Amino acid sequence: MSRGPQEIDTLIEMMSKLPGLGPRSARRAVLHLIRKRTTTMAPLAAAMARVAQEACECTRCRNITTSAQCDLCRNPERNSTLICVVQDVADLWAMERAGAFSGLYHVLGGTLSALDAVGPDDLGIPELISRLAADEVQEVILALPATMDGQTTAHYIADEIEERVRVTSLAQGVPIGGELDYLDDGTIMAALSARKSV
Amino acid sequence: MSRGPQEIDTLIEMMSKLPGLGPRSARRAVLHLIRKRTTTMAPLAAAMARVAQEACECTRCRNITTSAQCDLCRNPERNSTLICVVQDVADLWAMERAGAFSGLYHVLGGTLSALDAVGPDDLGIPELISRLAADEVQEVILALPATMDGQTTAHYIADEIEERVRVTSLAQGVPIGGELDYLDDGTIMAALSARKSV
Repeated sequence: MSRGPQEIDTLIEMMSKLPGLGPRSARRAVLHLIRKRTTTMAPLAAAMARVAQEACECTRCRNITTSAQCDLCRNPERNSTLICVVQDVADLWAMERAGAFSGLYHVLGGTLSALDAVGPDDLGIPELISRLAADEVQEVILALPATMDGQTTAHYIADEIEERVRVTSLAQGVPIGGELDYLDDGTIMAALSARKSV
Repeated sequence: MSRGPQEIDTLIEMMSKLPGLGPRSARRAVLHLIRKRTTTMAPLAAAMARVAQEACECTRCRNITTSAQCDLCRNPERNSTLICVVQDVADLWAMERAGAFSGLYHVLGGTLSALDAVGPDDLGIPELISRLAADEVQEVILALPATMDGQTTAHYIADEIEERVRVTSLAQGVPIGGELDYLDDGTIMAALSARKSV
């Protein structure tokens, strides 16, 4: 509660529900916006309305896009024989920022979870399998989180497709710049058992 | 950079400039909004556009409002003989949340600063002085930050008005729940010199 006019209280309440913002930072953000209401707030509202209206899922890989297929799927320079399976769009963006992958993606939108009743159909796994049949895919890279649910999902997908296509997953080990002292036991064990000759 | 469609990159860029958000949290917030584009994102954009259009300064106290005078100035139950001078609207909201003050406010919108060329006219100090002449004000409470600039501003205002009206300022001391070990030396010195009989 800010004790401002009703419209402003409503806006703060909505902003405070965004991930990473709480009531206090929402108040600060809204005051900042009101101070720059012509130069910043009105354009931000317009940009947000536009994305709310136009954003949709790519019909091929389930990435976020504003057209039927996303920029990556429509780019003829991407290697269509490689598909990288990611949990969500944030992970796709992280892969693209790293700039080391030139193939296409398949966005699951979550991981299998018996507790939350998320099954293969919710994750677009049948669509992934039909992409393998239709396109000339030679390798599927499972870039799923190294969590219990992520690895369960990776195993399930590998079981379904490993007879038709080469299936790989991201290497596990010590992150670049990582100090051993700060790593969990699981990471150290994985890095040790995957050790390489120098 | 997210490598998403242009409209989404633009939105993330704008969101990342809000106080309290950076590129990473802006990406998370935008993805969250896109996932709930009908139920959350479109209403938030509309609420923001509405506030951008309607928000303005109260003509009397410079609080944020959506009408000529703010809710506080128009409320006949507020004590119009008391004016609390605050640095900005966030501080006014903090005072109102505390619920201990029933008078009116005067929002400076900043503090005097030779470096940033902020003078008395920019802070509405002439308007404050004319309010003292027009209204039956008996006391002005200076609730300005305990910083160098805040205290300079408080001294300036006190000098200007102390012949016409009683001028007070918030007490300085140990915050409620504050541990001495975590307090700065200045606060401890202020609390010690303002000590009271128990």
